[in-house]
Amino acid sequence: MLITFEGIDGCGKSTQINLLKQYLEDKGKHVQVYREPGGAYIAEEIRSLLLDSKNDISAISELLLFSAARAQLVQEKIIPDLENGSVVILDRFYDSTIAYQGYGRSVLPLKEIVTLNKVASHGLIPDLTFYLRLPLNLASQRRSERARDRMEMAGNEFYTRVFEGYELMVKEHPRFIVLDGAHPIESIALEIQQYL
Amino acid sequence: MLITFEGIDGCGKSTQINLLKQYLEDKGKHVQVYREPGGAYIAEEIRSLLLDSKNDISAISELLLFSAARAQLVQEKIIPDLENGSVVILDRFYDSTIAYQGYGRSVLPLKEIVTLNKVASHGLIPDLTFYLRLPLNLASQRRSERARDRMEMAGNEFYTRVFEGYELMVKEHPRFIVLDGAHPIESIALEIQQYL
Repeated sequence: MLITFEGIDGCGKSTQINLLKQYLEDKGKHVQVYREPGGAYIAEEIRSLLLDSKNDISAISELLLFSAARAQLVQEKIIPDLENGSVVILDRFYDSTIAYQGYGRSVLPLKEIVTLNKVASHGLIPDLTFYLRLPLNLASQRRSERARDRMEMAGNEFYTRVFEGYELMVKEHPRFIVLDGAHPIESIALEIQQYL
Repeated sequence: MLITFEGIDGCGKSTQINLLKQYLEDKGKHVQVYREPGGAYIAEEIRSLLLDSKNDISAISELLLFSAARAQLVQEKIIPDLENGSVVILDRFYDSTIAYQGYGRSVLPLKEIVTLNKVASHGLIPDLTFYLRLPLNLASQRRSERARDRMEMAGNEFYTRVFEGYELMVKEHPRFIVLDGAHPIESIALEIQQYL
């Protein structure tokens, strides 16, 4: 089973992923968690390039770097894990590329990004996608409380487009489960557990 | 003017590029030379990942990394150089992706690689492509005399497919000028100069 978590930066994905991992392991499941970009050696190297705020990276190069990191993670880790019966939880997957590079940066027509996503993910589709919806002002406030990476330095207009992109995907894909990211941590965790 | 050099590793591209640069500069031209992957800060970082023989990189991730490096080089360097009136000489461009990742690794259908090449190169097409044709045994001998990187560690069957890929491209694209890489360095240089 492949479960992905999506949402704009600051929405609380990491916290919920840790709680879900614990919950599933307590039930005897074998769980693997990966973050995107990253999760495999080369993918983590690519992550360092992408998030370093000193780096000048063009929008298309950025899109291709995210895709390269994903291709390596999927082939080296996710496919073998799923074959071994593990539950795989991903902190972002290709929906983030649609939201950030597609809607946020408008780097390429969405259709071309979707094609690229299929190539990079070897055709994998998540079984479930938990979308932590958080009002933009709350997300911005949470981000301002921590050090920001290259991606997070984009402005408010960028995040507005990313948010709207997610909202459109929620309508399009039944695998998206919407959670209110402004709710208390424990109540979101319970909602996720009840859903599963 | 955009001039690219292509051929299998060991064919003598770098030597001819240096001679051509000197020749054009002596004629008062402004010349910029870049190697692929590389030529821009992020692209050189990607190059290090791609060529390090310790790195485990999947075929699709490799294809996307080459493309990411190209996208950055084109946007950051090549397009501005061409706009400034420079002659740009490239040590490899997207024909290498067709030959190495397309024919050599058969990672994706050629049509998808061509689409990816167009995206990564912002639609740029070389004005001239000098293809240094070298018999496979000679190329292999030249490579064996130097330290080999990750790409050059692929076996003879791989290089046979790459060679055949180049031969097919020569037939397809009139911009390919075939040079005999087994000829003496000076006579190849002269042939290039006469062509220009």
